[in-house]
Amino acid sequence: MPESIYTLFSHVLPKERLHDSEDILRAHASDETEDLVFMPGVVAEPNSTSEVSELLKVAFENNIPVTAAGARTGLSGGALPVQGGLMISFMKMNQIIKIDTNNHQAIVQPGVITEVLQNEAAKHDLFYAVDPASKGSCTIGGNIAENSGGPRAVKYGVTKDWVLNLEVVLSDGRVIETGANTLKNSTGYNLTGLMVGSEGTLGIVTSATLKLQPLPRFNALMLAPFNSIASACTSVSEVFKAGVMPSALEFMEKDALLLAQKFTGNYDLKVVAEAYLLIEVDGFFEEDLMPQCEKILSVLEENNCGEVLFATSSAEKDKLWFLRRRVGEAVKSESVYKEEDTVVPRAELPKLMEAVKEIGGRYDFRSICYGHAGDGNLHINILKDELSDEVWSKKLPEAIRELFKEVASLKGTLSGEHGIGFVQAPFLDVVLSSDQINVMKSIKSALDPTGIMNPGKIFS
Amino acid sequence: MPESIYTLFSHVLPKERLHDSEDILRAHASDETEDLVFMPGVVAEPNSTSEVSELLKVAFENNIPVTAAGARTGLSGGALPVQGGLMISFMKMNQIIKIDTNNHQAIVQPGVITEVLQNEAAKHDLFYAVDPASKGSCTIGGNIAENSGGPRAVKYGVTKDWVLNLEVVLSDGRVIETGANTLKNSTGYNLTGLMVGSEGTLGIVTSATLKLQPLPRFNALMLAPFNSIASACTSVSEVFKAGVMPSALEFMEKDALLLAQKFTGNYDLKVVAEAYLLIEVDGFFEEDLMPQCEKILSVLEENNCGEVLFATSSAEKDKLWFLRRRVGEAVKSESVYKEEDTVVPRAELPKLMEAVKEIGGRYDFRSICYGHAGDGNLHINILKDELSDEVWSKKLPEAIRELFKEVASLKGTLSGEHGIGFVQAPFLDVVLSSDQINVMKSIKSALDPTGIMNPGKIFS
Repeated sequence: MPESIYTLFSHVLPKERLHDSEDILRAHASDETEDLVFMPGVVAEPNSTSEVSELLKVAFENNIPVTAAGARTGLSGGALPVQGGLMISFMKMNQIIKIDTNNHQAIVQPGVITEVLQNEAAKHDLFYAVDPASKGSCTIGGNIAENSGGPRAVKYGVTKDWVLNLEVVLSDGRVIETGANTLKNSTGYNLTGLMVGSEGTLGIVTSATLKLQPLPRFNALMLAPFNSIASACTSVSEVFKAGVMPSALEFMEKDALLLAQKFTGNYDLKVVAEAYLLIEVDGFFEEDLMPQCEKILSVLEENNCGEVLFATSSAEKDKLWFLRRRVGEAVKSESVYKEEDTVVPRAELPKLMEAVKEIGGRYDFRSICYGHAGDGNLHINILKDELSDEVWSKKLPEAIRELFKEVASLKGTLSGEHGIGFVQAPFLDVVLSSDQINVMKSIKSALDPTGIMNPGKIFS
Repeated sequence: MPESIYTLFSHVLPKERLHDSEDILRAHASDETEDLVFMPGVVAEPNSTSEVSELLKVAFENNIPVTAAGARTGLSGGALPVQGGLMISFMKMNQIIKIDTNNHQAIVQPGVITEVLQNEAAKHDLFYAVDPASKGSCTIGGNIAENSGGPRAVKYGVTKDWVLNLEVVLSDGRVIETGANTLKNSTGYNLTGLMVGSEGTLGIVTSATLKLQPLPRFNALMLAPFNSIASACTSVSEVFKAGVMPSALEFMEKDALLLAQKFTGNYDLKVVAEAYLLIEVDGFFEEDLMPQCEKILSVLEENNCGEVLFATSSAEKDKLWFLRRRVGEAVKSESVYKEEDTVVPRAELPKLMEAVKEIGGRYDFRSICYGHAGDGNLHINILKDELSDEVWSKKLPEAIRELFKEVASLKGTLSGEHGIGFVQAPFLDVVLSSDQINVMKSIKSALDPTGIMNPGKIFS
C-alpha cells in the first residue's frame, strides 16, 4: 500500500522531497501530544503553493487522507496522521516573503517559526504578538490551524486576531484567498476566521498575511505569591476590574513552579506560596508602566498577596518567563500525563480550580494547574504517576468528562488554544449540542465533500 | 398573497405584533441605503428566541423569504426585504440582559441600541468600543450582521472582535449557540466569526455575549489641516510607523467638512485646508496622553500639516466629533448619492484617493471622501448632482467597477464595515474569484439549504 501511494505522488514531487522510508515516516508519526504514534503512508515536502495544489488533486482523485504538519508541537494531536495517507510537511515552506513596514503587515509561508517572525518584525520596531510557549519551535501554519494563543493573548488576542488573509488549498486542489490584505473586511463571509482554528480539516494554508503593530518597547514583570489558590484566582479578575490591561497574567500553582525548577535546575526562587501570578504590563513609552504597576500592586495587596518580586533587568525577566514556559515540558518529564486546555470566563477560575481538585480527589489523580488566567484559560495536567493502565484508560475519561461538564456549566469550553484535534474529539458533545456539531459537520462536508482533509479530527 | 402569509404567521404571534397594514409595511420597506424601497409581505415583532424559532419554522415549511431588521440604518441594503416575505423586526427585543462586571461581558438582545449599551457599560467603568457613526440609533444585531466598525476600530477592532458568543436561529428554526462565553476558544469551527458579517443569510441572531474592557477614561483629540490630500493620506501610515496607536484616525477632505458645517449650521471652524485628519489618543491614565500627542504632533509637522487644533474641553471634542459623524447625512441632504465603503492597506490610501478623483474626472462625477483612514477604510460618496438618470444608472456602475478594480489591485476590498448587502452584490466578482464565491455559496447552502434567509444579499 505505501508503495502505491508513493508512486501516485511521485508524479508531483521529486524523490528527494517525497519520503516513505521507515525512519522518516516514524519521525513524522507523532507530535507533542502524550505518547501517540500514527504512521503516515508517505511524507511530502512541497516548496510552493502549486505543488501543494497538485498533491491535493492527486489525493482527492484517489481518496487519500491528507494531514498537514508544521513543527508538530501541537498538544491535541491535530497533526497526527491518524488514518495514515499523505502527510504534507511545511518545514521547507519557511520563508518570510515580506515585512511590509508601510502597512504593518507580514506575508509568510506556513513553515515560518513564530519566534523567527517576531524577531524579524522587531528589527523594524514591529510586533507580532502571538507567543505560544513553543514559540521557538512552532510554526505560523500550526498556530493558524489551532488558533494558538499564549501569555500575551490577554491583551493582544489569539492567532485569529492577527491573520488578515490566507491563501488556502481546498481538498480538490483549488486555491483561494480567504479575504483581503486589509484591517477591516465586510465583504462576504469571513472565510479567514473560519479557516483559522479549523485544524486542516477544511483546507490547507499555504500563505498568510498577518497584521503587525508598533512594538511596545517597554514592559515590567512581577511575580506575586499567594497563600491560597483561591485568592490568586480571585485577584485575576480584580486586576481588570481596577481598570488596567496587563499584557500577560499567568497563574501557576506551587507544584507547577516546583516542577519547572526541578526541570530547569534553576532554584533561585524560593517557592513557598501555594500559588503565583506572573503579571506583565507593557507600553510604547516608559512612563506607561508605573501607573499600571501601582494599580496592580494595590489590587494584589488588597487580595492578600505576599511580597511581590519585580524583575528589574532583562535577565531577571527572561529567567521568570523561562520558568513559566518550561512548566509544560517539566510536567511531561515527571510522568505520563494528559493536558486539558479548559477555558472559562475568568471570574469562574476559582470554581474551576475547586472542581479540578475535588474531581482529582475522588478519582485519585494528581493534577498540576497553570495557564493564562487573564483570559480564563487553565492548563490542567493530569499525571499518571502510579495509576494503573486500566484506571488511566478506562476511569480517567470519566473524570475528564465530569470536569468538562463543570466547565460547560461555567459557560466555558474544552479548548482555549490547543484545539480539539484527535484527543479531545470524544468529548466535543459535552460542550456542543448535536445541532451545533451538525452545523459544523455540514460546513465540513461543503468544503471537503469526500472527507480527505485531516480525517479523525475535531469530530470523532 | 399578503393575506395568506399573514395567516400563516398568525399562529405564532398575536396580531398586535404581526403587521400587514400598508403604513407599517411601508415603514419597514427601506433603510438608509440610497432611496431604495422594497415592501415586505408581513412584519413580525417577536419578543423571544422561541418566537423567532417558531416564525422560522413556518417560513421554512412554506418557503417564505425572511429578512431580519434592527433600526434599518444600514448602508448596503442588508435589511431590505428585496424578495418580500417575512420581515422580523428586533426593535422589541431590546433588553440588556446582563452586564457581568466580574467577567467583563454583556449579554444583550439584538435590538439594543449600540450607544445604550456603551452608556450602560460606562456606568460600571466598562467599555464597548464599537462605535458606528449611527451609534445613537443602530442596533447590536445590525452591527453583528454587517460586522460594523467606526472610528475606534483602528485601535479596538470591529464588531467581530467584541462578540464572544451568539445565540442563532437557523433557517429551519433550530437554535444553536455559536461558541462559549470565553475570551479564547479553539473548540471546533469558529461559528461566531462566521455568523458575524453574514448579513442574516446564514441565521438570525437572537442573543449576543459581548466582550467589555476597562474603560479608557482619558483621551485627547486633535484636528490637523493639510494643504494636500496626498500629504494627509501619507501622514496616516507615518503616525503608526512612529510607534503609536491612536484610538481614532479619521480623514475628511475639505468638501466633507464644508458640507457637515452647512448641514449642522456650525461654522466655528474655519475650513480652508484641502484635507483634515481628526486624531484621538486614549488611555487608562492621564499621563498616557502626552507622550502619544507629542509623537503624533512631530509626525504631522514632518508631513507639512498646518496648525493643529487641540480640543481642550469635552464640549470642543463633542463638537469636532459631531461634525465628523454628520458628514454622511450631510452628503445625503446635498444630493442623491451612492456611498462606497472601500478599504485598502492604509499606506495605499494616497493611490486610492488619486484613483477616485481620476475616475471622477473621466466620468464627470463629484465625489466626497472621508472615513477611517487609520485602517484604510475610505467612504467614497458619489453625488448625482446634475447627472442624468441615464448616466447615473448606466454609466456610473462602470465607473464603480473601475474603481473597485483599482481597489482590488491595491490588495483592498469592497467593504470595510457596511457589508455587501443588496447594492454591492453585483460587484462581488471584482474582488472575489469564482472559487472564493463558490466556497461562500456552498456554506450558504449548507446552513440555508432552501435559500430563505435574506435572499438577494451578498450574492447577486
